[in-house]
Formats: sequence, C-alpha cells, structure tokens
Amino acid sequence: MTEAQIHHRLHRALLRHLPDAARAEPALRSALRQGAEHPGKLIRGRLVLAAACRHGLAPARSAMLACAVEYFHTASLLLDDLPCMDDAAVRRGRPCVHRRHGEATAILAALALINRAYALVGRAFAARSSGERRRATDWLDRTLGVTGLVGGQAWDLAFARTERTAALVSRVAAGKTGALLTLAVQLPALLARPGRVERRALEALCVYWGQLYQIADDFSDLPSGATGSGKTSDRDRRLARPNLVLALGAARAQARYQRLTQQAGRALGELRRAGGERWNYLLPVQAALTRPAAREPEIEHHAA
Amino acid sequence: MTEAQIHHRLHRALLRHLPDAARAEPALRSALRQGAEHPGKLIRGRLVLAAACRHGLAPARSAMLACAVEYFHTASLLLDDLPCMDDAAVRRGRPCVHRRHGEATAILAALALINRAYALVGRAFAARSSGERRRATDWLDRTLGVTGLVGGQAWDLAFARTERTAALVSRVAAGKTGALLTLAVQLPALLARPGRVERRALEALCVYWGQLYQIADDFSDLPSGATGSGKTSDRDRRLARPNLVLALGAARAQARYQRLTQQAGRALGELRRAGGERWNYLLPVQAALTRPAAREPEIEHHAA
Repeated sequence: MTEAQIHHRLHRALLRHLPDAARAEPALRSALRQGAEHPGKLIRGRLVLAAACRHGLAPARSAMLACAVEYFHTASLLLDDLPCMDDAAVRRGRPCVHRRHGEATAILAALALINRAYALVGRAFAARSSGERRRATDWLDRTLGVTGLVGGQAWDLAFARTERTAALVSRVAAGKTGALLTLAVQLPALLARPGRVERRALEALCVYWGQLYQIADDFSDLPSGATGSGKTSDRDRRLARPNLVLALGAARAQARYQRLTQQAGRALGELRRAGGERWNYLLPVQAALTRPAAREPEIEHHAA
Repeated sequence: MTEAQIHHRLHRALLRHLPDAARAEPALRSALRQGAEHPGKLIRGRLVLAAACRHGLAPARSAMLACAVEYFHTASLLLDDLPCMDDAAVRRGRPCVHRRHGEATAILAALALINRAYALVGRAFAARSSGERRRATDWLDRTLGVTGLVGGQAWDLAFARTERTAALVSRVAAGKTGALLTLAVQLPALLARPGRVERRALEALCVYWGQLYQIADDFSDLPSGATGSGKTSDRDRRLARPNLVLALGAARAQARYQRLTQQAGRALGELRRAGGERWNYLLPVQAALTRPAAREPEIEHHAA
C-alpha cells in the first residue's frame, strides 16, 4: 500500500469506529465527527497500522489499534485546547471544538473517544496471549496516566509557577509528547513478542525519540532570527511555557539534539541486530525525527 | 465480613490502587487523594466487591474491580461539578476539586482515575475466558460512552434548551444514573457466566433500577410540601434540570415508581429462579431502592 492509501484507509476507519454517533446528542455528535473528519497527518495512527500489520495482526484489528491511538491523541488535543489548559482558538485550521460547541461538549467528546479507544484496544488484543494483553494494559496505564500524558500536562500547567529547569522541561516533554509516541511504538511492538534485548532497545528508542521530537518542536516555536527554523510564533517565551531551547540556550539544545540523534540511531541498530528486518518500519520515523536540514521534523507540530 | 469491614477494606484499596501519586505534580496528587480519602458511601464499589467475591473472583482482584467502578464514579463527579457542567461548589461536604485546585487539575485527576480504572478492570479480568473479557469490554463501552454516562450528561446539558419531555428525562436518567449502576451490576455478574435467561433478567433489572433510583432522587429534590420527601432543594425546577416528577406530576411519577418496583421484583425473581441463590446479594439493593416508607432510597444522592 502507498502512504496515500494507508492514510485513506485509516481515515475511513476513524469514521467507522466512532462512538455510536446516530444516538448521540447533536452537539456531541458534531464534536466527535469534527475530529474524525479532520484528523491531521495521522503520524501515530499510520505508524501503528504499519507496525501491527507487519507483526501479523489482521488488517481489521490493526486498524482498530491505530484508531485507538488516534482517538487518545484527539482526546488529548480537545482537552489541551480548553480555556483552563492552553486556551487555544484554532486546531487543524478550524475553530476548536469548545469554541463551537462549548467546553462541556469538548470534555464529553474527549471522554467518549477515550472510552471507545480502550474498547478498540481490548478488541484488537482479544485473541492474543495473556502476557501480551497484560503488557498492553501496562503500557496504556504508564503512557496515558500520571506517569505519562496526564502527568506531563499537569507539570506543564505547573511550569509557569515553578522553577523553570531543563529537567522539568524534559519531564513535561516526556509526558506530553513522548507518551503518545511511546504508546504508538510499544503497543504494536508487543505483537512481535520482543525479547529482552529488543524490549530494552525499544524503551531507550522511545525515550530518545520523545526528546528529539520535543526539541525540534521547541526550536520551531522560537522566532526565525534566533534559530533559523522559519517559524515566528515565540509563544513559549511569551506564555512562560516549557521550552528546552529557552532553558538551555540554542547551542546546548542543538548539541543535545545531535547526541540524542546518535543515541536513537544506536538503539535502533541494537533492535535490528537482535530482531532483524521486522523492525524496519521504524527507520522512516528515525529519518523524519533526525533530518539534519530541518530541526522541525515532518511530523505534526504539537499545537498543529 | 460485616458491612463496616467491607467498607474499610474497600477504602484502603482505593488509596492503594491510586495512580502513582508519589511522582505526580502536587496539585494533581492532592486532587487524586481527596477523592480516595472521602469516597462517599461506596454503594457501587461494595456491590461489586460482594458480587465478584460471590462469583469466585479472588479477593484482591475483586477489590480491583470494585476500585475501578468507584474511580469511574469519582471521575464522573469531578467532571459533573465543573463550571461548564453543573457548576457545583461542594461535594461530600468539601470544596469541589476545581474550586481548590482549578479546573485543569480536576480534569486531569478525572482522566488519571479513568485510565487507572481501565487498567484495574484489565487486571481483574486478565485470567478469565476470552468471552468474559469481550463482554467486559462491551459493557464498559456501552455504559461509559455515548450510549451511557457521557451520552446522558450530554442530553442533560441539552435539556434546558430542548423540549422537556418525560422521555428525555428518562434518557438522561438512563445515562447519568443508570449507567454506573448497570456497570456495577453487570461487570461482576459476567463472572457467573449467566445463561440467556439470566442475562435477559439482569438487563431488565438494571433498566428498572436505574429508573427507580432516578425517580427517588427526583422526588427528593422537590420541596417537602409537594411530596413529603423532607428535602427542600427544588434545584431542578429552578435550573430547568430534568426531573421526572416535574415532567409527569407527583401522582403519575408515584404510579410509575410502583410499577417499576413490581417489574424489578419480577426480574429479580426470574433471575433467582434461573440461577438460584448466587444472585441473593442483589436482594438488599432491591430492598434499598424500593422501600415503601421513603421515596429517597438509602443510597447516595446523585449530587451528594
């Protein structure tokens, strides 16, 4: 399948697996459809779909898993955009759900997506071994809760009123950006029944990728004159948001970026030495996250 | 075990299974502990604990299942209380979480509880048959999402701006009150591997109980002069909230209450004829929901 075909197939699955919209209250139905109709680049979903198929899960179940990760992602965006969080007005070129339908509907849509996502993971893993199911449950717990996405957002909100250290910036990044990327890598990787060496390499890879992603994003937020990224938002500085380039300075952040690129490359090398070409679908992700010409990778901006 | 011992054991489990609070941002940690330290009457959790133990699940796993249902419940209360929902100030005699820690923290605490609840259900059912696991996934999907709790809340919010019919009141009630009660009954009932007749009786029973619970709650909201319930809140009338007694009038609501009591009794009878005394733990619930002297049952008020 071409990339365009994968995107098309995933987009259709996102609409098909939505919570039973015909019976929903109209504003809630509209909010649910808005996310599925304008789903962004589907970076995580496409990775999950390719990985799950590669590791032998049936296409229909692979699509369920991909939709689940995308629904978790969309839910986190709906909530991040609320006035009490990032107070965003526009998402994916359209008014945010809470601006169109109110905050309550945005919250309820996020909950409905999260609920459906858990159901889809349950169905995708229904016929797998108890060990795989247990690990899937553990990864969801680790990456979405207090030690992951929710925790990262909480530290993000606390950032403006606490000591703005590079360590805290990294903690926020690990939760907010790293967690969903980790879930998108680890959930389908379980299906390969990775050995101990592979598991360790995968964990390291996810840590490095999460940080790479965030540094690229942080560079892209700064005015173009300062970093050459071509972006002029400067939103993080104005709003005292966590930004590693602001915390470390551009030179040290750039050096860290180079080091992380090498570390991620080594982890990927170990993974492929231990498990062979079945991990090759991760190579394009590494390439996208570490392309030298652009510090902003070809993957979705966290506020895009 | 006595009721007090069950309550104590469940209360300890609620604290033990909380998301990893030591690593959480302090406001989030405090919000998570507030719910577990002041958990209310634990009606649903105690029912789940008794039922799961009765149907042969190990005590530790039964407690996980009970905690999961209580976490889902607490999360729904955290969100219902938000300014964009019911805008409540006090919950269980204490300032609401969003009044103490802000709306963002209340939302994040709810998400953390939901995430942990799904993990606990996964662990509780880890060693069960694939059929039981599939049905557990389906019940969570049905009762918590658009066809359940989330959907009920969406219709509740829409109520003030739509036609205020008795049918819509019942739809809101089925979602808001009925869904969690249904989950608390059906999730542990799966462990009994109920036959077709038992399953049908359980489904009917949950529908009747959800409506009984809500009518009792609606009577309790009205001024005491109108219904003799001894409560004087009248909040539903003032805020144009769904209330079946307001929609039907006290006499017709009372007649419906009597009819539902009989219908629930018959469903419970069928269940016990088909499955015997293993369903006896449901008798006290029926007694509490249908006591003739008080229209307000000895179970938690939905705004309490």
